[in-house]
Amino acid sequence: MNAEIIAIGSELLTPYRQDTNSLFLTDKLNQIGIEVRFKTVVGDRMPDLVAATATALSRVDLVLFMGGLGPTEDDLTREAVAKTLGRQLNRDSEFVEWLRARFAERGWQMPENNARQGDIIDGAEMLPNKRGSAPGQFLQVDYRGKMKVIILLPGPPVELTSLFEEQCVERLRRIVPGLYIATRELKIAMIGESMADKRAASVYKKRTDVETTILAGTPGEVQIHLRARGDSAEAAQQRVDSLASALEDEFQDAMFSAQGESLEQIVGYYLEMRGATLAVAESCTGGMLAERITTIPGSSRYFLGGAVVYHNGLKAELADVPPLLIDEHGAVSGEVATALAEGIRRRCKSTLGVGVTGIAGPGGGSEEKPVGLVFIALADGNRTDVVERKFFGDRQRIRQWASQQALDMVRRKLM
Amino acid sequence: MNAEIIAIGSELLTPYRQDTNSLFLTDKLNQIGIEVRFKTVVGDRMPDLVAATATALSRVDLVLFMGGLGPTEDDLTREAVAKTLGRQLNRDSEFVEWLRARFAERGWQMPENNARQGDIIDGAEMLPNKRGSAPGQFLQVDYRGKMKVIILLPGPPVELTSLFEEQCVERLRRIVPGLYIATRELKIAMIGESMADKRAASVYKKRTDVETTILAGTPGEVQIHLRARGDSAEAAQQRVDSLASALEDEFQDAMFSAQGESLEQIVGYYLEMRGATLAVAESCTGGMLAERITTIPGSSRYFLGGAVVYHNGLKAELADVPPLLIDEHGAVSGEVATALAEGIRRRCKSTLGVGVTGIAGPGGGSEEKPVGLVFIALADGNRTDVVERKFFGDRQRIRQWASQQALDMVRRKLM
Repeated sequence: MNAEIIAIGSELLTPYRQDTNSLFLTDKLNQIGIEVRFKTVVGDRMPDLVAATATALSRVDLVLFMGGLGPTEDDLTREAVAKTLGRQLNRDSEFVEWLRARFAERGWQMPENNARQGDIIDGAEMLPNKRGSAPGQFLQVDYRGKMKVIILLPGPPVELTSLFEEQCVERLRRIVPGLYIATRELKIAMIGESMADKRAASVYKKRTDVETTILAGTPGEVQIHLRARGDSAEAAQQRVDSLASALEDEFQDAMFSAQGESLEQIVGYYLEMRGATLAVAESCTGGMLAERITTIPGSSRYFLGGAVVYHNGLKAELADVPPLLIDEHGAVSGEVATALAEGIRRRCKSTLGVGVTGIAGPGGGSEEKPVGLVFIALADGNRTDVVERKFFGDRQRIRQWASQQALDMVRRKLM
Repeated sequence: MNAEIIAIGSELLTPYRQDTNSLFLTDKLNQIGIEVRFKTVVGDRMPDLVAATATALSRVDLVLFMGGLGPTEDDLTREAVAKTLGRQLNRDSEFVEWLRARFAERGWQMPENNARQGDIIDGAEMLPNKRGSAPGQFLQVDYRGKMKVIILLPGPPVELTSLFEEQCVERLRRIVPGLYIATRELKIAMIGESMADKRAASVYKKRTDVETTILAGTPGEVQIHLRARGDSAEAAQQRVDSLASALEDEFQDAMFSAQGESLEQIVGYYLEMRGATLAVAESCTGGMLAERITTIPGSSRYFLGGAVVYHNGLKAELADVPPLLIDEHGAVSGEVATALAEGIRRRCKSTLGVGVTGIAGPGGGSEEKPVGLVFIALADGNRTDVVERKFFGDRQRIRQWASQQALDMVRRKLM
């Protein structure tokens, strides 16, 4: 079965907003074995909506509409689909009374235009919306001699996702039986996209039963998405798992995630498992490393904190870097990175200490120390490892690469 | 004139990738006075491409194709458009020789499939691509009795943007003369989207000559996009400027940006203008505040650094918070926020010090101190202001709100 997703709303045709719901829907549809063949964005105009609906019905089996189900005059999806099908709308009085009661509970009188949300296309099932007021609709129709499925979904992501998962997946599975899709996401650190692709291709090219997509994630991360079909969930899973383990063999310890976890999650997992704690002293990353670590709920169990030592004076004040060391080697040097890692570790009494210093640009570079040069050190109390890297890209990318390198060093230390 | 943008590529129909070029193109087209009525995404299949092309030509005046111009078998845009129009492709031998020479310069032999990039639709102008190899194409055709404009653009953003700006804007201006569009972006801090919309509507509803779009930005930021048409650039500009100043009157000092600048930029601008410096001590934001400040190039001129004091021991060690204060009031309290701001200011010898402490969740909340409770303090050496806020949303949103509040307090202090 193939599908078209139609996103409705004039705001989606401005330079400021974009449909993102379709990525979620595509993933869910693919898992049921339904392929998305077209995506369309159309504004809130009746003739455009009717034209888009007719076009979609003529070229795919399943048409999903997102948005345009609210109470205002701009919300025309119900009318447009009904008009294209030559069917009438029936107002569901039970729904209208429910909605009126909901308003009344809050002490409000329901504005009458809200009743439009209960207009159901003749022959459609109403799909109650637990997160909002506008219900979805599901119908199968004969359109010019062919069976078509039509689904109307509300636009707000929280409403759309729960309504689709709870009320559409099973209905579609009954129509498209016997096909299962399994997916897995693997992640690789600190290998460039083209090199990762080349190495992965040597493995996945032999396996035509699994669809493989290589994508660049945050700088310093490459994602490998695997997707396989099967007659059962187990058969599909077995296919992706088998290719995943072949890829693990290829990438060895550069592969940090075998189930889609983020590098921050993996680092947190290892720290907690080892009963270790971490502190960081950052110059060029400016807090990004700490910020990434603390995105993880519960990170306070292993992350103590640290210092952002942008100004050279603070490198001494907060991380005990001897000012003479900066005079001698420069703030951007392996020696200062080492002193930052060791100093912050002592200050914070952590198991591990990380120091980062570099030139994020766009200014501040020199021939000897160009923009992109970063030193990253990791101290454990016995030894301190320091790496020198030259990263490319703009200020933000250089900072992202540097924080990724630091996280990856911590991961490798604890593996 | 109205337009449809067609993005081509099977990867754009997966759950992992999305067309983003269309936002750029929409902005540029709007500026010329062309309205985007439909956007379509279609995969690399000849029948689907021909169907999408025919549909677009039947419903709009200008059709822009993005992608599918490369050398591989999957690159079918040229063939599909030619086929839909019933025209032939002519291989441009001059282009092919140029491309062959480019390969030769690098010591490579051109794979013969690259010559396909020189296949030009009969009647089209070739648009040379300075950033890549595949040229664009521009043609005007009579399609079923109506004049249509067709533009073929390469998919990679860097190629598409330069090719469109350098070679399509003027060609389109000659076809759509005498219409100019001016835009402006205003930003408001720490007012909710619906409240901001209500207040803005009282001003912009009276002005039908300017299109107004209200959007939520990062948590704690609302953007107001203005767009007006005119017979001259000046007339259009005068319209948006006039509404912008009415909105400035409405929002007063809650409006932090009148030209689209970020809050981080504005804070940096004020700090530098006042010759002031800043240091921060962050608990729940975990480095996010420092990270946001240091996204701005040159921020080392006014941002000294600070401490991420996740662990309570570090609040004393790095920001001189008396441990007894924490025992008495709890780490999440106005007293500790105040001590953090004052302590980090003294430690770093900065003009201003900021302290942030709160509960980002999902765990760690209590009835007395729920998830979302955040205290933010700003010390200037004479006085310390502290605010207590209750933010809603997930961990990341609460951290974003808190860092936004802190930045906005610094801005208001310096205004």
